[in-house]
Amino acid sequence: MAFMEISVVPLGTGQPGVGDFVADIIAHLRKEQIPHTLTDMGTIIEGEVEQLLALARTLHEMPFQRQVWRVVTHITIDDRRDKKVHLQDKIKAVSQRLS
Amino acid sequence: MAFMEISVVPLGTGQPGVGDFVADIIAHLRKEQIPHTLTDMGTIIEGEVEQLLALARTLHEMPFQRQVWRVVTHITIDDRRDKKVHLQDKIKAVSQRLS
Amino acid sequence: MAFMEISVVPLGTGQPGVGDFVADIIAHLRKEQIPHTLTDMGTIIEGEVEQLLALARTLHEMPFQRQVWRVVTHITIDDRRDKKVHLQDKIKAVSQRLS
Amino acid sequence: MAFMEISVVPLGTGQPGVGDFVADIIAHLRKEQIPHTLTDMGTIIEGEVEQLLALARTLHEMPFQRQVWRVVTHITIDDRRDKKVHLQDKIKAVSQRLS
Repeated sequence: MAFMEISVVPLGTGQPGVGDFVADIIAHLRKEQIPHTLTDMGTIIEGEVEQLLALARTLHEMPFQRQVWRVVTHITIDDRRDKKVHLQDKIKAVSQRLS
Repeated sequence: MAFMEISVVPLGTGQPGVGDFVADIIAHLRKEQIPHTLTDMGTIIEGEVEQLLALARTLHEMPFQRQVWRVVTHITIDDRRDKKVHLQDKIKAVSQRLS
Repeated sequence: MAFMEISVVPLGTGQPGVGDFVADIIAHLRKEQIPHTLTDMGTIIEGEVEQLLALARTLHEMPFQRQVWRVVTHITIDDRRDKKVHLQDKIKAVSQRLS
Repeated sequence: MAFMEISVVPLGTGQPGVGDFVADIIAHLRKEQIPHTLTDMGTIIEGEVEQLLALARTLHEMPFQRQVWRVVTHITIDDRRDKKVHLQDKIKAVSQRLS
């Protein structure tokens, strides 16, 4: 299992906010029942790398349906194969270390 | 006010885990009482750009104190000046849109 | 057409250098005759988003063949659909503006 | 010495192109005689971490002078202290390995 953080940024929209675009993404993840965490800077999703990149493809395409002509998408894949990790594990591990 | 997401990655440590390095960072933020959110992929901090980049300097330096010879640090600054935003605001706004 | 910048970073290798891993990636791109630019910070590739993400999948997998247990891959997709762009176009355009 | 890759993206400009913003940045680097490489995806600069982050501060501020209200800046610092590295070294090293 791996984690993907993804941030899909539409360019040239004429307004600084991107909330509608983020809402599209979260609505899709909820509909597809894909485990995720929305943060102030992107969305973190857990899964197999193959699935995660297929999902990135779908999410990257979404703003083009709202008359946007350029999208810049940042993706980080953190793929660890020596042990199973799940969303929130890292946060708990750090909290334990510091308590 | 702006947000910074930062991820400080030590290279060549000999082990896949980076929990000790993340704990150093969070311990520093707690000691300095800097508002932050730890996620599975990095740490998000709220502040003025000037302060955020000064803090990035400090956090980037920390792994070198643990006999690491190379550090790759990713920083994203999201700086919006048409309205005040705070940590968690974006998450609440998207939730409202979808409810 | 879109651009992808990709940086594939193996963690826990025991040495700060990553040249062998970068060479694996460039050898693959040359063998497959995929147009690319190697920079000091990553590799930039031109193509359709679908192909680019399939390629990202392949490149991300490569370090695991060298007994690495964790790989962090950063991908940026810049996808502009209002006009055709190719590698080096942006650099030429900026040079013209400044000359 | 370290490398910084920086990409400064203005949001909500009303047009997909960002060439004027990139030209501002390159004009500044030329005027200050700061060694850099412009790529299709960002700008790579060599220097001490302290200087690089101070420069990031300056470059991040530039789009706000063009009536932009939100800027998202991506910065990657690659800081290696076991040997001196300069712009283009990595590219030459990989070419030698593959020749």
